[in-house]
Amino acid sequence: RRQCWWPKMILREKYSLNTASYTDSSDDETSPRDKQQKNSKGNGDFCIKNIKQADFGRREIEIAEQGKHSRLSSLRIQSSEPRYHCKQKKTPPLSSSPQVLMETLSALGAQCRWAACNIYSTQNEVAAALAEGGETRVFAWKGESEDDFWWCIDRCVNVEGWQPNMILDDGGDLTHWIYKKYPNMFKKIKGIVEESVTGVHRLYQLSKAGKLCVPAMNVNDSVTKQKFDNLYCCRESILDGLKRTTDVMFGGKQVVVCGYGEVGKGCCAALKAMGSIVYVTEIDPICALQACMDGFRLVKLNEVIRQVDIVITCTGNKNVVVRENLDRMKNGCIVCNMGHSNTEIDVASLRTPELTWERVRSQVDHVIWPDGKRIVLLAEGRLLNLSCSTVPTFVLSITATTQALALIELYNAPEGRYKQDVYLLPKKMDEYVASLHLPTFDAHLTELTDEQAKYLGLNKNGPFKPNYYR
Amino acid sequence: RRQCWWPKMILREKYSLNTASYTDSSDDETSPRDKQQKNSKGNGDFCIKNIKQADFGRREIEIAEQGKHSRLSSLRIQSSEPRYHCKQKKTPPLSSSPQVLMETLSALGAQCRWAACNIYSTQNEVAAALAEGGETRVFAWKGESEDDFWWCIDRCVNVEGWQPNMILDDGGDLTHWIYKKYPNMFKKIKGIVEESVTGVHRLYQLSKAGKLCVPAMNVNDSVTKQKFDNLYCCRESILDGLKRTTDVMFGGKQVVVCGYGEVGKGCCAALKAMGSIVYVTEIDPICALQACMDGFRLVKLNEVIRQVDIVITCTGNKNVVVRENLDRMKNGCIVCNMGHSNTEIDVASLRTPELTWERVRSQVDHVIWPDGKRIVLLAEGRLLNLSCSTVPTFVLSITATTQALALIELYNAPEGRYKQDVYLLPKKMDEYVASLHLPTFDAHLTELTDEQAKYLGLNKNGPFKPNYYR
Amino acid sequence: RRQCWWPKMILREKYSLNTASYTDSSDDETSPRDKQQKNSKGNGDFCIKNIKQADFGRREIEIAEQGKHSRLSSLRIQSSEPRYHCKQKKTPPLSSSPQVLMETLSALGAQCRWAACNIYSTQNEVAAALAEGGETRVFAWKGESEDDFWWCIDRCVNVEGWQPNMILDDGGDLTHWIYKKYPNMFKKIKGIVEESVTGVHRLYQLSKAGKLCVPAMNVNDSVTKQKFDNLYCCRESILDGLKRTTDVMFGGKQVVVCGYGEVGKGCCAALKAMGSIVYVTEIDPICALQACMDGFRLVKLNEVIRQVDIVITCTGNKNVVVRENLDRMKNGCIVCNMGHSNTEIDVASLRTPELTWERVRSQVDHVIWPDGKRIVLLAEGRLLNLSCSTVPTFVLSITATTQALALIELYNAPEGRYKQDVYLLPKKMDEYVASLHLPTFDAHLTELTDEQAKYLGLNKNGPFKPNYYR
Amino acid sequence: RRQCWWPKMILREKYSLNTASYTDSSDDETSPRDKQQKNSKGNGDFCIKNIKQADFGRREIEIAEQGKHSRLSSLRIQSSEPRYHCKQKKTPPLSSSPQVLMETLSALGAQCRWAACNIYSTQNEVAAALAEGGETRVFAWKGESEDDFWWCIDRCVNVEGWQPNMILDDGGDLTHWIYKKYPNMFKKIKGIVEESVTGVHRLYQLSKAGKLCVPAMNVNDSVTKQKFDNLYCCRESILDGLKRTTDVMFGGKQVVVCGYGEVGKGCCAALKAMGSIVYVTEIDPICALQACMDGFRLVKLNEVIRQVDIVITCTGNKNVVVRENLDRMKNGCIVCNMGHSNTEIDVASLRTPELTWERVRSQVDHVIWPDGKRIVLLAEGRLLNLSCSTVPTFVLSITATTQALALIELYNAPEGRYKQDVYLLPKKMDEYVASLHLPTFDAHLTELTDEQAKYLGLNKNGPFKPNYYR
Repeated sequence: RRQCWWPKMILREKYSLNTASYTDSSDDETSPRDKQQKNSKGNGDFCIKNIKQADFGRREIEIAEQGKHSRLSSLRIQSSEPRYHCKQKKTPPLSSSPQVLMETLSALGAQCRWAACNIYSTQNEVAAALAEGGETRVFAWKGESEDDFWWCIDRCVNVEGWQPNMILDDGGDLTHWIYKKYPNMFKKIKGIVEESVTGVHRLYQLSKAGKLCVPAMNVNDSVTKQKFDNLYCCRESILDGLKRTTDVMFGGKQVVVCGYGEVGKGCCAALKAMGSIVYVTEIDPICALQACMDGFRLVKLNEVIRQVDIVITCTGNKNVVVRENLDRMKNGCIVCNMGHSNTEIDVASLRTPELTWERVRSQVDHVIWPDGKRIVLLAEGRLLNLSCSTVPTFVLSITATTQALALIELYNAPEGRYKQDVYLLPKKMDEYVASLHLPTFDAHLTELTDEQAKYLGLNKNGPFKPNYYR
Repeated sequence: RRQCWWPKMILREKYSLNTASYTDSSDDETSPRDKQQKNSKGNGDFCIKNIKQADFGRREIEIAEQGKHSRLSSLRIQSSEPRYHCKQKKTPPLSSSPQVLMETLSALGAQCRWAACNIYSTQNEVAAALAEGGETRVFAWKGESEDDFWWCIDRCVNVEGWQPNMILDDGGDLTHWIYKKYPNMFKKIKGIVEESVTGVHRLYQLSKAGKLCVPAMNVNDSVTKQKFDNLYCCRESILDGLKRTTDVMFGGKQVVVCGYGEVGKGCCAALKAMGSIVYVTEIDPICALQACMDGFRLVKLNEVIRQVDIVITCTGNKNVVVRENLDRMKNGCIVCNMGHSNTEIDVASLRTPELTWERVRSQVDHVIWPDGKRIVLLAEGRLLNLSCSTVPTFVLSITATTQALALIELYNAPEGRYKQDVYLLPKKMDEYVASLHLPTFDAHLTELTDEQAKYLGLNKNGPFKPNYYR
Repeated sequence: RRQCWWPKMILREKYSLNTASYTDSSDDETSPRDKQQKNSKGNGDFCIKNIKQADFGRREIEIAEQGKHSRLSSLRIQSSEPRYHCKQKKTPPLSSSPQVLMETLSALGAQCRWAACNIYSTQNEVAAALAEGGETRVFAWKGESEDDFWWCIDRCVNVEGWQPNMILDDGGDLTHWIYKKYPNMFKKIKGIVEESVTGVHRLYQLSKAGKLCVPAMNVNDSVTKQKFDNLYCCRESILDGLKRTTDVMFGGKQVVVCGYGEVGKGCCAALKAMGSIVYVTEIDPICALQACMDGFRLVKLNEVIRQVDIVITCTGNKNVVVRENLDRMKNGCIVCNMGHSNTEIDVASLRTPELTWERVRSQVDHVIWPDGKRIVLLAEGRLLNLSCSTVPTFVLSITATTQALALIELYNAPEGRYKQDVYLLPKKMDEYVASLHLPTFDAHLTELTDEQAKYLGLNKNGPFKPNYYR
Repeated sequence: RRQCWWPKMILREKYSLNTASYTDSSDDETSPRDKQQKNSKGNGDFCIKNIKQADFGRREIEIAEQGKHSRLSSLRIQSSEPRYHCKQKKTPPLSSSPQVLMETLSALGAQCRWAACNIYSTQNEVAAALAEGGETRVFAWKGESEDDFWWCIDRCVNVEGWQPNMILDDGGDLTHWIYKKYPNMFKKIKGIVEESVTGVHRLYQLSKAGKLCVPAMNVNDSVTKQKFDNLYCCRESILDGLKRTTDVMFGGKQVVVCGYGEVGKGCCAALKAMGSIVYVTEIDPICALQACMDGFRLVKLNEVIRQVDIVITCTGNKNVVVRENLDRMKNGCIVCNMGHSNTEIDVASLRTPELTWERVRSQVDHVIWPDGKRIVLLAEGRLLNLSCSTVPTFVLSITATTQALALIELYNAPEGRYKQDVYLLPKKMDEYVASLHLPTFDAHLTELTDEQAKYLGLNKNGPFKPNYYR
């Protein structure tokens, strides 16, 4: 292995592989922290639910790869793109799901340690498969407690004789932990790649305050990832999440969607297409005007709260739906969050003695008012698309490829290219991620002629658009 | 109880209640036919999986009613509609799910016996709840064998000291059984209500051949039921069924839909809205022209079979997708049936030695060619919407209300109104079913003024359209 | 010419050819009735605006044929369809626009006389071209008075030494006129083909009252014609008509559509797709429920009249929008009619002294209230799609082909097939019309295998659906 | 008038007012340059078609304002927004059409001279109304020659005793002219506001080359303007332009759209919604992937050129459709350009002896191949949306308001805020433009609570998004 790409990273990942993530029968009640497990190679540097599930998890990974995006497995880091070239004999495929991302990074020479970014998002079988593989050290299981959560992160960071030099974070908790507990560690870290809105927000705040001490790449705002993670993915997962939990019929339903960013746009488009009547709330006049032009009534929440059948939050904000709103909803109203962690709906306000909670299915609670009115609360206000739906492997592939390219770019960049600031993924790489995924659709890109390239003042290989273009 | 409505019926039902129908963990392997069970009242005239599941099933019914269509429970047979009036003190609600249909019919005075119309469609818990209730005699469980299936039907028909006078059939198997085994029974039967395409088709054939010996009501072709069962329901269930089984992303996928009737129209509209590229095959030039105008390329299957990602059959025909087509599909192609029983895809042709079958999840098989190509076959070619999705209670309510009104009409009709022929539900009743469901949407119907009614030559209360209007 | 098809017909046509219909510079003020004109062959048995416009009109016809549907000109009455076969040496194309219909009928051996069905719908140039052709006797011009209108009809009927034996009517005025003035004429008439809702309604009333004395074919309700004339055509012409008259932007506009039949469905779908927020009013609960499921709020007109930007009537009813509604509309509200003649909006109620009318463009009036509020009334409440938009030649071709087949069927039918009643076009012919138009879309119909036809109990050449299927 | 806003500007405008722009009967053949005209105040410093049309033009402006966006006339430069405050007693409305823009700027104290940016885009009546008003000096008429075009620009610039200090350009021709002829003039110019892609491109090139000598504001890329000018406007005008010129039916038509930027997205969405089958070509993989996810087949032009009915260019590139493509199109294919000036279709290549051109209507040519094949070329390859459609006053208002705010910002900015570079409109102003237009839709914006603003780290009044957010 050559020097050029031999990072030691800590990874935190949001998405589990889909297959069995929705129905989970965990019979074993022992905490993983209390178990002694080893993989078949005798290695015990991991902490997961059950190493015996590794075979099943491996098969799930293979099925996902096989059934859907087998073409991705032929993608390679092209030697014609020396920028991303790693001078290895065997260049593995760059792609697909987070698991494949980790294995890809390992194959490229990285030593990785992995913690989950969400206490529910880990699929135990897949974690077992990774632990069994042995390249990536995994500390994650489904249903961690708050304490478990930070313990797992610490197990990734605090390792004797091992020091990370790259961070791939999702939500910023890991970055935060190192800042707080091990600030000296940043001396050897070459960069942070962050993929969540929240994490990016924190990085910009650090940068503004002059406290950011390494370069950071904001991959959340890369065009390709944005469109897929938010617009295209949510357009499908809002329907999937609602159906799996409530079997609701969409036709004729009145729905209010709070927030008309990319997530809101996806939710609104899907529900409108299925015959729902959709209202939108917004704070930003530009997004608000777009909602109008797309055919949605722009309202304040209180104007429609009594009449709607479904309330969906997609704002990234907090307390968008508060107790006062919940009190006014009609019987049977479904409330869920597609936006940001669990802040958007003030679920805490529902934990009062006069209200009865009834768990009717996994991820579905009926909250019952004294007069018998029931609100159907999904995933206790956590992200519906992660809790009650699945993320298509195609989207995972977009995200993973973007992350991998960002990690490689930060690690390999000549000194001075990146300073202690937050950067967007260079447009050309963004375009590269997109072009790697076009063959899936049998899509045929047109090439500029020399004459046209000259006329437009562009390089024939891109970048084709200014950085601010979306 | 008055004479006017005191039928003894045999019912066969397609739909289970939705809630837990998709994931089912049946640990008990004993055949229900070998069990001796009694409900809490000591009655043992039923045959189901497990009477102990009654409480759970009862709760599921209540939740479905509560959570979604609680308004339906206030619907009543209006005294202002004397045609449907039954002169009972306590008129129960007319509506909602099949279970509620049965309880409603019982409450109206009917003695009912129930068999399933599909070996997989019964939800054991709900069957238990009905058996426990005791009014309806239930003979059905999930996963019946072919032999069990006919045995259950026979248990409904062949009862000592009991003779049915009304039949509610779905698929025509019950009608067929009586014709074959107990033809004399028809002497006391006042009518058949049939709700499936297949069953209706058989009835028309009987009628044409002069062999239909009782009046029959074709409720399959009532406008309201048609639109909901087919167009509106399939528009949602095609997405739901595909997501739950394969987690496929719809955006950019190439799909061919065979058949552009109401089911095909629903599937095409939904997939187009989700960003799929949809091709259509048709035999009927009128439907074909509609597909063109709706923006779908009309092709023969072979023109696109090599390139599509998903194949969906909705024709009501047989052998629409044959081995030759399957041989030419690309790796990973998903194949499923939304149309009619299990005839549309020639699944038998895939049971050959050179092909390997691999069950990857419930209802999902990979069929593997010698060169490694995999086809993803859903529900072994049976109906995707019944096997892998759920039917919204709203649609069930439309269907159940239509069936109930048809039963009442046939039973109560003065002699001579219906002869030994197949009838469509009278338009006025069709409109009545629709109007009962409008309040769910807070929809406000406009009433004709006297002057307008006169101008149009219509009664202010309908019917508003000629019978052939759709 | 053989006996089999040698009818003498009277035709009344709604649609003009499109090309120049919107902008019309009629400089000549003399009434056509006061002019003496002859065509180049010396024939003067017509009454039109100006025979000199014939060349221009001929060229317009040719351009329309050439530019858009040149494929239609190769359609022929197939000898493989002996039912429609006329045993002529030279069988002309069956198709396209009304003008081509007339020329086709003439070529098939018919002697035709033509009056318009609407005082504004005639395109003078095309009328001139037909008059010059000489085969069809034309009595029609744009901008006839009420008196002119009936005079023209009478000129078609009341001809010395000529007696019609077939009637093609649109609106029923011609039929009405013969009933009233020349009832004896029906003795030699073999049938009436009627294509409008109104005309069909009158025929059913005649039939019900036992007064219909010849067979009549209701082509208005043939599936193909219905879908094209109403759903598909109005989906486009509502946008076209509004744009040409008002240049209104659709995005974000609030619109109420009165009536959710095929026309309303087309209007709603188009406006929704363009980003309008659409409300629907309905009297029929079945159509109302469809509106709900398609994502439209079902309201009474008064609930939204103050807030909407556009009001569109598509009911076929009268006084759907009355003065009270108009008084409550907001400033700038656009009001138009897509439904039925000019009865839907009570325009007469606006002819009061306190309101000022201002003609701002052709077909656009501002009606101004004392407080300065303006209502934008289009086409004085007449049909927007005919007055301010154009009808695609493709739709004209569907209609004309349907009419021609209906005429041929009624004329050629063996005695006894049709009695003194109103008939729908036989399904098989309806399918034939559709199949003749598929090549335009390069659409490839699938054929049933013998095995499939047998399974379905169908003839491989159709009809494929029962008559009530839509 | 206060010093703060007293610019002398030169304006160049693309859009005419809509009303009569499509049908134009210019009887007078004298060149405006050869006429001596004065307005009623005796002022002759203008050059237009006919000053007598002023009354008609004035009425057109009033009708446009009245009929559609009367609410805009109550918009004011809010005193609560001191940044845009001009400290005048009577602040006129800021809004609506270009004409109102000019009058608004005049009322704010500006002395303006106006030339057209396109030889066909001027509506003579409106130019007359402005000339009559006398505040703005107008040099423009419909149908200028190339020489006239530059003469008009020169008449705006080269004025004795008058020196501009602000430039509002559209296309960059004016900027180019001053650079070439009067470079010294830039010493007193405080800034350039440019609204076209081409003009902006030239400015960036100047900036890159270090030749830009004043600050320039790129308003083309402001989010609000982009979305309306491109996405929302083209979504409607593609349908309008095609209908008015060809009366084509969209349903079932096969269309290829070259380019999937905002214009292409608008065209594709509209045509898909109307039932067309749409193919897309792209060079940029990011836009290409979006086309796939939105349900369009991504192809190279040659793959579909033989089969499509309509070809639309929206690339901003040159020679996208060349003679080789045109040779392969099928008979009747419609070709038009929605993208950029007249470079996209190589129209010059059609001016060869073997091809016959036939003008069939205004803006519609048939180009006829030796074998009789006809291509329908619209607007000779110029912009369809400007030549054959209208621009809604709402969109004009967005553009005009954006331009006005940019002019005010550049003129009033404290020294040093803007250097000799190209700037995007500040996000906050972009949001302000949007918020001014929300009342048209009766849209109700939600306001952040203090707690929420703090949580998000935002000012409650915006800007709400980072500058790169689209």
